[in-house]
Amino acid sequence: MAEVRLHKVNIVTDSSSEVSDVTAREEPLEIRVEGRSVAVVMRTPGHDEELAAGFLVSEGVVQRPRDILEVSQCPSTNNEHGNIVDVLLGGNVVNWDSLTRHVFSASSCGLCGKTSIESVFQQFPSVKGEWQVSPKLIASLPDKLRAAQETFSKTGGLHASGLFDLNGNLVVLREDVGRHNALDKILGYTLQRGLLPLDRHILLVSGRVSFEIIQKALAGGIPLVAAISAPSSLAVDFAQGAGQTLIGFLRGETMNVYTHPQRLSTAP
Amino acid sequence: MAEVRLHKVNIVTDSSSEVSDVTAREEPLEIRVEGRSVAVVMRTPGHDEELAAGFLVSEGVVQRPRDILEVSQCPSTNNEHGNIVDVLLGGNVVNWDSLTRHVFSASSCGLCGKTSIESVFQQFPSVKGEWQVSPKLIASLPDKLRAAQETFSKTGGLHASGLFDLNGNLVVLREDVGRHNALDKILGYTLQRGLLPLDRHILLVSGRVSFEIIQKALAGGIPLVAAISAPSSLAVDFAQGAGQTLIGFLRGETMNVYTHPQRLSTAP
Repeated sequence: MAEVRLHKVNIVTDSSSEVSDVTAREEPLEIRVEGRSVAVVMRTPGHDEELAAGFLVSEGVVQRPRDILEVSQCPSTNNEHGNIVDVLLGGNVVNWDSLTRHVFSASSCGLCGKTSIESVFQQFPSVKGEWQVSPKLIASLPDKLRAAQETFSKTGGLHASGLFDLNGNLVVLREDVGRHNALDKILGYTLQRGLLPLDRHILLVSGRVSFEIIQKALAGGIPLVAAISAPSSLAVDFAQGAGQTLIGFLRGETMNVYTHPQRLSTAP
Repeated sequence: MAEVRLHKVNIVTDSSSEVSDVTAREEPLEIRVEGRSVAVVMRTPGHDEELAAGFLVSEGVVQRPRDILEVSQCPSTNNEHGNIVDVLLGGNVVNWDSLTRHVFSASSCGLCGKTSIESVFQQFPSVKGEWQVSPKLIASLPDKLRAAQETFSKTGGLHASGLFDLNGNLVVLREDVGRHNALDKILGYTLQRGLLPLDRHILLVSGRVSFEIIQKALAGGIPLVAAISAPSSLAVDFAQGAGQTLIGFLRGETMNVYTHPQRLSTAP
């Protein structure tokens, strides 16, 4: 949280008062791999090593804990967190041309046309996960997410992602000004603990589901993605092709199941 | 809008019904300048030439209508809109190294650390606009924006940006799955009509204000940015430095004025 002073204006009383409030922190993070810059993301500082690791999971560069030897963060003069992290990889030789070309595309969208959509599908296998959960369990997750996050209600400016097990227990929660960063932080957290692929897990995101979110969920092997708000057309198409169950508008007693409803025990 | 079939599940009645709905369309657009790819953005198809032109305004490449000779769109086999646009510039020689380096950074965030924050401030002059509007006029804009947009309420998945004149009249409205795209489309629209810089205009965005939004508003010379939701810490800092009035939580009778309140006639 960053403190700000602001003027609250009321048009009915035609008055204004100066008050303090907090805003969601947003700062740039430059991600380097072995000293070479591969991406800059705008993120909320904190869990930056997870973010860098998860970003490389999303890009298909790392899969196992030993693929990353070390993530080091350069301290900064005006920030308790540094704004540069450097990732030292374990053993594998990185195809730099491929990584930088892919990352530079992916930083805005993750693909560059039909040919690239196909290559994205090829890059990660379709999800597994031949299990079922009840719609009631899914419907209980938003309250658990909200209970676990305090900052969200404080600023109204943060996206949250929560990873749950098949009993509906929260495994990890991350928040960020960027919805994709919150998910990358979760992927980094689970990579570091050897939990990938997440084929017995459920992802809940606080906002909308774009292509980028469903693609990153696939990179982590997550078979079921639920969201409080709407999915995009491409998110639906991608989830259909990747075998992922995609649920949107998860609010109160109802939810919309867009793809692969067989994972819900009330078989739609 | 893209049509989808989905299952609506109700956990109280333990029932499920198959229904039709629409999702916000999301597709990749590759922006080329004179045949060279400079960026790929995920956008809602439509107004793609404006998006490409506005993107180049945001990057500081073009400023006047004559800076762009032609924007051509390649047709696609599976899409009424093509997913590639090529921009032919007028006369000026582009610094390719600078453009691609800057664009690749900017596609995710727009800056790469403190040095780049300073260079962004240097790239665009601080806004002018020594005028005042009443808080009541500002408070009337959200209803005008909502009245003008139909698709937003249909899917719940679209961001809207509206440009208004100082009498509160809507000049142009654009919607997109990406909030930054909606604004780039506005910048492209106004570039093509010779309206830049927009120093006697007000921007209203339907969601949050990140750094990227306030930076693009500065590229267009917009002195006042209002939003329905929260700004990020960096958006506040940037607006303060650029001389922009930043208003958030514009809802009903109240609004939060974060920076440069002197443009409101009820002087806070």
